[in-house]
Amino acid sequence: MKYLGCAYYPEYWGVDRVETDAKLMKEAGINFARIGEFAWSRMEPQEGVFTLDWLNKSIEILNRYGIKVLMCTPSATPPAWLASAYPDTVIVKADGKRLEHGNRKHFCSTSDTYRRHCRRIIEVLCREMKKHENVIAWQIDNELGPEVGWCYCENCQSRFRAWLLEKYGSLETLNRAWGTGFWSMDYSDWRQVRLGSDPFHHYSSRNLDSKRFFSDMMIDYGMFQANIIRENHPGSIVTTNGMGPIYPHINYYQLFKDLDVACDDLYFDIGTMDADVAAMNVFRSIKPGKKFWITETGSGALDHNKPPHKKQFRAWAWSAWAHGSEAHFIFRWRTCLSGQEQELQGILEHSGLPRHRYQAVKECFNEFNDLAYELDRVSLPKAEVAIIQDYDVLWAYDSVRVGPAVNYLPLVYQIHKKLYARNILTDIIDPGQDFRKYKLIILPSMVMLDKEFADRLRNAVYAGATVFSIGQMGMRDKNNNYLPYPGPFELTDLFGIKIHGGMYLDSQVGVEEAIWTPEHRHGSVTVAVKGSVAGETLTGMASKWIADIEAIDCESLFTFQDEAYQYQPAVTEKRYGKGKAIYQGFLNGTVELEERIFDDILAQSNVQVKYQTPLHVEVVERDNFICVVNHLDRAVEVNIPSPVKAVLGTYEDGKCILEPYGVGLLRCI
Amino acid sequence: MKYLGCAYYPEYWGVDRVETDAKLMKEAGINFARIGEFAWSRMEPQEGVFTLDWLNKSIEILNRYGIKVLMCTPSATPPAWLASAYPDTVIVKADGKRLEHGNRKHFCSTSDTYRRHCRRIIEVLCREMKKHENVIAWQIDNELGPEVGWCYCENCQSRFRAWLLEKYGSLETLNRAWGTGFWSMDYSDWRQVRLGSDPFHHYSSRNLDSKRFFSDMMIDYGMFQANIIRENHPGSIVTTNGMGPIYPHINYYQLFKDLDVACDDLYFDIGTMDADVAAMNVFRSIKPGKKFWITETGSGALDHNKPPHKKQFRAWAWSAWAHGSEAHFIFRWRTCLSGQEQELQGILEHSGLPRHRYQAVKECFNEFNDLAYELDRVSLPKAEVAIIQDYDVLWAYDSVRVGPAVNYLPLVYQIHKKLYARNILTDIIDPGQDFRKYKLIILPSMVMLDKEFADRLRNAVYAGATVFSIGQMGMRDKNNNYLPYPGPFELTDLFGIKIHGGMYLDSQVGVEEAIWTPEHRHGSVTVAVKGSVAGETLTGMASKWIADIEAIDCESLFTFQDEAYQYQPAVTEKRYGKGKAIYQGFLNGTVELEERIFDDILAQSNVQVKYQTPLHVEVVERDNFICVVNHLDRAVEVNIPSPVKAVLGTYEDGKCILEPYGVGLLRCI
Amino acid sequence: MKYLGCAYYPEYWGVDRVETDAKLMKEAGINFARIGEFAWSRMEPQEGVFTLDWLNKSIEILNRYGIKVLMCTPSATPPAWLASAYPDTVIVKADGKRLEHGNRKHFCSTSDTYRRHCRRIIEVLCREMKKHENVIAWQIDNELGPEVGWCYCENCQSRFRAWLLEKYGSLETLNRAWGTGFWSMDYSDWRQVRLGSDPFHHYSSRNLDSKRFFSDMMIDYGMFQANIIRENHPGSIVTTNGMGPIYPHINYYQLFKDLDVACDDLYFDIGTMDADVAAMNVFRSIKPGKKFWITETGSGALDHNKPPHKKQFRAWAWSAWAHGSEAHFIFRWRTCLSGQEQELQGILEHSGLPRHRYQAVKECFNEFNDLAYELDRVSLPKAEVAIIQDYDVLWAYDSVRVGPAVNYLPLVYQIHKKLYARNILTDIIDPGQDFRKYKLIILPSMVMLDKEFADRLRNAVYAGATVFSIGQMGMRDKNNNYLPYPGPFELTDLFGIKIHGGMYLDSQVGVEEAIWTPEHRHGSVTVAVKGSVAGETLTGMASKWIADIEAIDCESLFTFQDEAYQYQPAVTEKRYGKGKAIYQGFLNGTVELEERIFDDILAQSNVQVKYQTPLHVEVVERDNFICVVNHLDRAVEVNIPSPVKAVLGTYEDGKCILEPYGVGLLRCI
Repeated sequence: MKYLGCAYYPEYWGVDRVETDAKLMKEAGINFARIGEFAWSRMEPQEGVFTLDWLNKSIEILNRYGIKVLMCTPSATPPAWLASAYPDTVIVKADGKRLEHGNRKHFCSTSDTYRRHCRRIIEVLCREMKKHENVIAWQIDNELGPEVGWCYCENCQSRFRAWLLEKYGSLETLNRAWGTGFWSMDYSDWRQVRLGSDPFHHYSSRNLDSKRFFSDMMIDYGMFQANIIRENHPGSIVTTNGMGPIYPHINYYQLFKDLDVACDDLYFDIGTMDADVAAMNVFRSIKPGKKFWITETGSGALDHNKPPHKKQFRAWAWSAWAHGSEAHFIFRWRTCLSGQEQELQGILEHSGLPRHRYQAVKECFNEFNDLAYELDRVSLPKAEVAIIQDYDVLWAYDSVRVGPAVNYLPLVYQIHKKLYARNILTDIIDPGQDFRKYKLIILPSMVMLDKEFADRLRNAVYAGATVFSIGQMGMRDKNNNYLPYPGPFELTDLFGIKIHGGMYLDSQVGVEEAIWTPEHRHGSVTVAVKGSVAGETLTGMASKWIADIEAIDCESLFTFQDEAYQYQPAVTEKRYGKGKAIYQGFLNGTVELEERIFDDILAQSNVQVKYQTPLHVEVVERDNFICVVNHLDRAVEVNIPSPVKAVLGTYEDGKCILEPYGVGLLRCI
Repeated sequence: MKYLGCAYYPEYWGVDRVETDAKLMKEAGINFARIGEFAWSRMEPQEGVFTLDWLNKSIEILNRYGIKVLMCTPSATPPAWLASAYPDTVIVKADGKRLEHGNRKHFCSTSDTYRRHCRRIIEVLCREMKKHENVIAWQIDNELGPEVGWCYCENCQSRFRAWLLEKYGSLETLNRAWGTGFWSMDYSDWRQVRLGSDPFHHYSSRNLDSKRFFSDMMIDYGMFQANIIRENHPGSIVTTNGMGPIYPHINYYQLFKDLDVACDDLYFDIGTMDADVAAMNVFRSIKPGKKFWITETGSGALDHNKPPHKKQFRAWAWSAWAHGSEAHFIFRWRTCLSGQEQELQGILEHSGLPRHRYQAVKECFNEFNDLAYELDRVSLPKAEVAIIQDYDVLWAYDSVRVGPAVNYLPLVYQIHKKLYARNILTDIIDPGQDFRKYKLIILPSMVMLDKEFADRLRNAVYAGATVFSIGQMGMRDKNNNYLPYPGPFELTDLFGIKIHGGMYLDSQVGVEEAIWTPEHRHGSVTVAVKGSVAGETLTGMASKWIADIEAIDCESLFTFQDEAYQYQPAVTEKRYGKGKAIYQGFLNGTVELEERIFDDILAQSNVQVKYQTPLHVEVVERDNFICVVNHLDRAVEVNIPSPVKAVLGTYEDGKCILEPYGVGLLRCI
Repeated sequence: MKYLGCAYYPEYWGVDRVETDAKLMKEAGINFARIGEFAWSRMEPQEGVFTLDWLNKSIEILNRYGIKVLMCTPSATPPAWLASAYPDTVIVKADGKRLEHGNRKHFCSTSDTYRRHCRRIIEVLCREMKKHENVIAWQIDNELGPEVGWCYCENCQSRFRAWLLEKYGSLETLNRAWGTGFWSMDYSDWRQVRLGSDPFHHYSSRNLDSKRFFSDMMIDYGMFQANIIRENHPGSIVTTNGMGPIYPHINYYQLFKDLDVACDDLYFDIGTMDADVAAMNVFRSIKPGKKFWITETGSGALDHNKPPHKKQFRAWAWSAWAHGSEAHFIFRWRTCLSGQEQELQGILEHSGLPRHRYQAVKECFNEFNDLAYELDRVSLPKAEVAIIQDYDVLWAYDSVRVGPAVNYLPLVYQIHKKLYARNILTDIIDPGQDFRKYKLIILPSMVMLDKEFADRLRNAVYAGATVFSIGQMGMRDKNNNYLPYPGPFELTDLFGIKIHGGMYLDSQVGVEEAIWTPEHRHGSVTVAVKGSVAGETLTGMASKWIADIEAIDCESLFTFQDEAYQYQPAVTEKRYGKGKAIYQGFLNGTVELEERIFDDILAQSNVQVKYQTPLHVEVVERDNFICVVNHLDRAVEVNIPSPVKAVLGTYEDGKCILEPYGVGLLRCI
C-alpha cells in the first residue's frame, strides 16, 4: 500500500499539538495526512480575511516527519458569515424552506455567489499550498451529494429549464419526450416547468430528468473546483472522495472521468463484506487500469456503535490491497471533543493518548511498509466477468410511482454476491465502457438501453462472450416511458425473444384479514418454473416479477407452470456467433434453482471457480501473489492448488491456514 | 349486463389509432367508452383556445362500431397554464403551502376562478357532444374528493364561516353548539373561526362541522357542473364516479340524490370479497330501485402488484351483475407508456397488442352479450336486512381526540360480513331512508341520532321489524358533544334501557415492561359476559368497549361478570308492538358468542339462511335466477334446494358444481 | 391526607349547578376544589372586560360546604381574541409556522405582550380572590412546558442571545465553550447564533444550551406569575402542577425552589407502579422536609382507555400517603361533554349523575377523613439511599447526534426499580442537594459533573458513605464536549481509576442479511465479564456500553473477558476514608449478575432489606406506621417482623394479609 494516511484537523487541535501528533503518526507508519475540508471558518474568519499561518506551519511540521498532504477545498462547510451575508448560497428544500447555518453541506451548488467565494478561497489556498513540496494532492469539497437534500431554489429551477432547453430544443419536444398527454401534463410555457422528484406524485420522466440534472450540476460544480486547482497548482493530483458501493445520486463514472484517481470513503463495517468488495470492484472499474484510493475508513466505532473486532482493521486493509487500492486513509487521527461527530472514534482517544486503536493501526501499517517494495509494483487484479451498472436504469427505477418490486441495486448486489461467494473477481462497469475483454457480461434489470450499446453487445457475443440478462430488459425508452412495441429494444435478434410485458408478484393485500381470496394470503406470491440444466430436470418458484416472453428464435430452458403465462418460456438461450445470449425472465427464483442456473452459465462461459471457501473467506490473485483473507470469527483452511510460499500467514500441505480474521499472502513459485 | 365499457384516451394515443382500437373493442364485446376526464390540456391547450377535432373524430369512429360514449368533464386535471396563471385555483394545504402543477386533483373546489374555467370548457364540450348520437352520458370530474388533501385557502375559510353563519345564525349559538366553554375556546369574532380537522388538537365539534363543510362543498361543486350539463345537453345521463365500499369523505347518499345513477370505481382486488359485496350493496342502496354502474374496474394489475387470477375477472363480473350492476367499465383500454400510472395494466399491452387480458375480457363480455336479452330485464335483488350507515356518525368518530377503539367502519363491515357469509343480501342505507320494508334493521355504533329517526324506528319496530343495535347508541348530540343526561337519546322507551356511559377496554400501557400490574399486560383487556340464547347458557368475553346499562323495562339476556359493571346487563331485549328491540352493549365479543347471538337474532327476525356455503362462495337471487359465484381457488359444490336449470355452469343432483373461480347461473323451474 | 380535592369547572357547567355539586362533593369527603386554569375566555371575554360574577358566586357556595379553593391563573388557555389581536403572543414552531387558536398552551412565554395580559388578569383575580377566606392557594398556569413544542420566534432567538451573552461574556468565549472548530461552526456575529435542538444536525453544545435556555425561560415565566400573586394576595400558598416521574424539559429542582410546595400530576395508570413510586420519590425530594401534593390523578379512564380496577383508586391513594403526599386532587369532577378531552372520565358521568367512580372516591376519601387526626401529624418517610438525577446530564444525552445507547432516564428508572423491588425507600435528588445523610449514593451515567460536586462526594465517602457509580462518568465538560484528558473528572483519586473512553455495543448493521460477519448478526453484541462477589466467582455478559478503564489504585472485582478491553477492569472498588467507591464500567449486564452485584453493594453499605415481597407489593414505613399496599390482582401475605396492630386490613400470625389491591395500615406496638 503506497499511501497510509489519516484525516487531520490542526485547525481544531491547534498548531502547538502538531509536532506531538506528527511524531506519533510517523511511528504508526502514516505517510499522508488529509487536511482542511472543514476548516473554512479558520482559514477565512471574515469575508476576504485569510489566516493560513496555522496551516502553513502544520504542513511544514508534517513535512519534517516525511508526511505528505492531501489538501482539501473547505467548501463542504461554509462559515456562518457566508450563509448569513449571502442567503442565496444556502439550499432551499422542496417545501420552500431555506436551511440555516449549523450543520454542513447546506450550500447550493449552482449559486454563482457561492462559486465566487469558493473560487477565492481555493485560489488563495493554491497559492500557499504550491509552496509546500509535501502537498501533492487535492480533494474537492467532501463527499459531494445531497447529504441534506437537493436544492430547489429558483436559481436551480432556472438552471433546470436551461438544461432541458439544451437537451430538447423546445417545449414541444419536451412534452413529447416526457409523454405529457396523460393527466393533462402538457407544458405551454417554460415557466411552468419545475424540478420534480416525487415518485408518487410526479411524472416518471420528469423525475428521471430531475435526477440527471442534479447529478450533472454536482459534477459541474466539482469540475469548476478542479479547474481552479489545475490552473493554480499544476502537477498536483486532483480528486474527490466518493461514497458507497454504488452511490445512487451522482454518476461516478462521469464524475471521476476527468479527475485523477477514483476515491471511496469505505467504512467496512457499514455493510456486509460482499458489499465492501462490490465497492472496491466499482472503484477499480471506474478508472480502468488505475489503482483506486480509500480516502476514509474507520479504525474504531461510528458514532454509538460497536467498533470492529481488533483484528478486522488488518483483514480489511489487506482486502483493500488485494482489490487494487493504493491508499488507505483513516478517518480520523483523534476523536473530536465537540460537535455532531464527537463519538466517531479516531485513532487516538479524546485525550490524545494512543491506546488500543493506535496499536492496531501501527501494527498493520508497519506491516505494509515492510513489504512496500514488493507490493507497490504489483499490477491490478484482472476480472473475467463484468456486471453492467447503469445510472440511467438506477434513476429510472427510483423515479416511478410504486416502490419497484424489481429493486435494482439489491439485484446488482445479489448477482455480485454470487460471484464474490465463488471468489470470482468482477468488474462493475458503466454501459459506455468497453466490455469486449470479458468472458461473461451480466445485465441486471437493464430496463432501458440504447442502440449503440445493443450493437456493441451483439458484437461482443458474436466474438465469443456470454451475455446473461435477468429481469426487465429493453422495455422503456430513455425517458422512462414504456415502448409502444414489444421489447427487448434492439435485442430481439440477439436473444431470439420478444417481451410483451410482465407480471409483478406482490399481492395487493398483505394483511391476513384483508385478502380477497383465502388462498393468496401473503404479500407476495410465487409462480412455478420447470426446466433442465445440464440434462437434469429442475423445478423452482419465481417471485417478484416474471416476463411475458414470446420465443422467436431461441431454446426455452425453463417454462412457467401456472398463472397467465403458463407454458411460456421462463429462461431462454440462443447461440449467437461464437457466444451465447441467456435471458432469465424472472426475479428472485428459489435459491437453489438460481444457483444451479448460475453455475451452468459460468461453466458455459468458461469462467472457472478456482477457490472454494466458506462465504466471507476471500481469495484474490494479483500477478504472482495470492491474497487470502478470512473475515470470519473462526479459524479456516483454504486449499491452494498451485505451489506457493507464504509471505504472510501459514501455508502447509497445500493449505493456507488462517486464524480468525487472519490474512495469508502467498507468492506463487 | 347492459353496458360493457372501458376508459379510453384518444388524446394520448392519437386519432389515427382509433379505428384499430374500435375494431378490437367491438370484437371484445365492448359497447361503451369513457372519454375525456384527463384531457383538458389537449382540449384547451391555451386559455380560451379549443382543439376538439381529435375528440369529435374519435367519437364518430366509435359510433361507426356501435360504441356509445360516457363523456367526462376534464376538471380533475387542470392544465399547467391554469394553475400557473391563476394560483387561486390551486389547493392550499393545512400548513399553508400551495400545491404545484404536476399531479392531479390539485384544484380548490370553492374557487370562483376555477369554476369559471370549468363552466367554459364544459359549455364548449356540451355544445359539441350533443351533436353525437352516441354520447349518451356524462361523468362529472373524476373521483371527487381530497385525493391530495382538502383545501384550507382563505376562500375556503370564508366559505366555512358563511356556512356556519347559515347553520347557526350567530357566533353565540355557534359557541353554545360547539360547547366552547372548556379550554377557553369561545369565539368573540367571526375572523377567529377557521377550519379544523385535527382530531388531537382541535375541538371535536369543530372537526365534525369541518368534515360536513368539506363534503357539502364538494357536492356543491358537483352540482354546479351537473347543472351546466343539464342546461346544455338535456336528456343525457349525468353522474360521477364514486369510490370505496363506504367512501369516508363525501356523503354519497346526498351526492347521488340529484344525479341519475350511482357509480362506483370498484377494483375487486383492493379489498376482500365481502368488502366488494358491501360496496355493491351500498351503491344499490344509494338510489333505491335503480341499477348501479361500475365505472372502473381492473382487468390486470394495479401498479406493481400481481394481477388477479385469469378467471377472476369473470367471477367478479358475475357477482356485479348479481348484485344489481348494469355497467362494467374496465380501466383502461391500453396501458399508458408514461406518467404516474404507467404500470397500471389496461386491456391491451403497452405495445397495443392484445394478449392475455384481452382474451379474458373478450370471453366474459361476449358471454354477457349472448345472454343480454334475458339478463337485462331481470329486476333488482331484494334485501330483507338493512344496516344503517350514517355519515354524521362516521365523521363523529373521525373527529375525536383518540383513535376510537370503537372503529366505526370496521364494525359496519364486520356486521356486513356476518350477513355475506350467510348469503343474506343486505342494503346499506342512510338513516334518512325508508326502512319500513326490512325485517331486520341493524344500528352499528349509532352514537348520535335525531328524534325524527327515533320516531320512525319506533314505528317500524311497532309494526313488526326487529332492530338490533350494537355499541355506543344515542350518547352524543349532533355536534359530537355528549348528552348531559343518560342515553340512548329518544330510545329509552323502545329499548327499555338507560345507558350511563361506558368503558373502553384498551389498556393504557401496551408494552410488556411498561405495565403497572403484571396481570394486565396487553394492549387490550376483556370482560366476561354470561347469559343464554334459546335456553342454552353461554359465556364469552367482551373487548374494546362495554356499556354502563341500567335496565328500565327489558329482559337482560346477558350480563357482565366482572369489572365495574359486574352483573349489569350486557345484552337486552324488549318486545315492542309486533317487533323487538335488541341491544348488545359491547363490541367485539368472543367470535362464537357473537355468532350465536347473531343467528338467534336472524331466527327471531324471521330472516332465513337459505344457502350454506364456504366463505367467499356467494349465492344471490334475482327474480327467477340464482347466481352462484365461487371466489375460491378450489372447486366447490353448493346445495340448491329448489329445482333449477343451469344457464351457465353445471347443476347435478341438486347441486351446483363449480370449478375454481367458477360461475353458476341457474333458472328456477 | 390533609387535602382531598378535585378539578372543578363552574365556567363550563354554570353557576346554577354549583350547589348540587358542592353537596355531592361534601358527601364524597372532598374539601378542596381546583378552579379556573382554563377559564380565561369566561373571565375576560373581551380585552379588558372582566366577568367574574360566576366565579365569586361559585366560590361562596363551595365555602358554605367547607370546601377550600386552589385558584389557578388561566394562562394555559389564552382566549381567541388574544391570539387574534396579538399574534406575537403565539408560538412559532422551528419550521417558522405560527400556531393558531384552537388547542391549548400555544403562547410564547417570553412574549412581553403575553406577559402584560397575564399580569392584568392575575392582578384582577387576586383582587377578587383575597376576599374569599377559602381561597388559600394558587396554581400558576397549568403543566408548564412544551406541550405543543418550544417557541422559536425572533423574540426567543434574541432572548437566547442575551442569555448566552450573560453566560459567556463574548462570542469568542462562546465559540471556545461550544468547541466550534469542527465543521466551521465558528460564529463571527451574534446575529448568526440561533436556538438549536436537533440532535442530529446541530452541535451538541448548542443543543444543550438551548435546552437550558428553554428551561430557564419557563422558570422565569413561572416566577413572573408567582411574584404577581405574592404581591397581590400575600399569605396564599403559591405553586404550580408538575408532571412525570422525571419531567425532562424543565429543571424542577430549580422551578420549585421558590414555590411553596412541590406538586405532581400523577396518573398512576400511565406508567408502571415502580415509575409511580419514582415520581413520588422525586417530588418528596424536590423540597426536602416538605410534604408534596398530587394535583391531578384519575378516578377513571384517560380518553379511550380502560379505567383502572375499581379497587386501585384506593391502593394508589394509600401509596401516595405512604410516600409523603398530603393532597390528592382528582381530575376532574365531571366528564366534559365537549372538546378534546370529552372522553377523559371525571368522578361524575356526563349526565352529572354519581355512579361507580363516585362510590369509589367517596369510600376512599371518607376512610382518609376518618383517620385524619392520626395520619396528618405523621412525619415524612426517611430514605437511606439517594439517586443523583442531574438535568444537565439528562439534556446532555438528549443533545447528541445518535440515540444514546446509554439511555439516561431508563437507567435511572432501572436502578430505582431495583430499590423499589426490595422495599428500600429512595430519594431522587439533584447533584446540588446535600447527600451527607445517605448511606448509599448512586450515580447513574453521570457523564458530566463539576469540581464542587466531586469535592462534596469525596467528603461524604470519606465520612462513611458508599458511592456506586455506573456507566459513563466524568467524561465530558459542562458544554457536552469530551475532556481532552482521561476521566473521571476530579474523581480519579476517589475511585482509583482512569477512564480512557468506552465502547458502545450496538452493532452497526441490524438486519440479518446486511451483516458483515456471519457471527455478529444482531443489533447489539455482548462482552463477557468475570469476577467475584463475596468470594464467589461469577460470570455474565455486559451489553450497551463498556468502559476503557485503567486501574490506578483500586481493587478490580470484575474484568472483561474478550474484545479490545480483554482483562481490563469491569467493576472496581476502592476504600476511601470510612467509605467505599464502587464503579461498574458497563451498562445492562446479565440480570442475575447485576442483581448479585447490587445486593452486595447494599450489604456493604449497611442498607437493610427488611421486607421481602413480590414485585408491586409495597411496604413503606412512616414514624410508627407501616403501610403495605398490594398492587397485584391476587391476594398476598407479607411477613412483618416487628409486632404491630392493624389500623386497616388484616394482621395475623406475623403476617399482613391482603386481598387483591388491598391495603394494610399497621401501627407498631
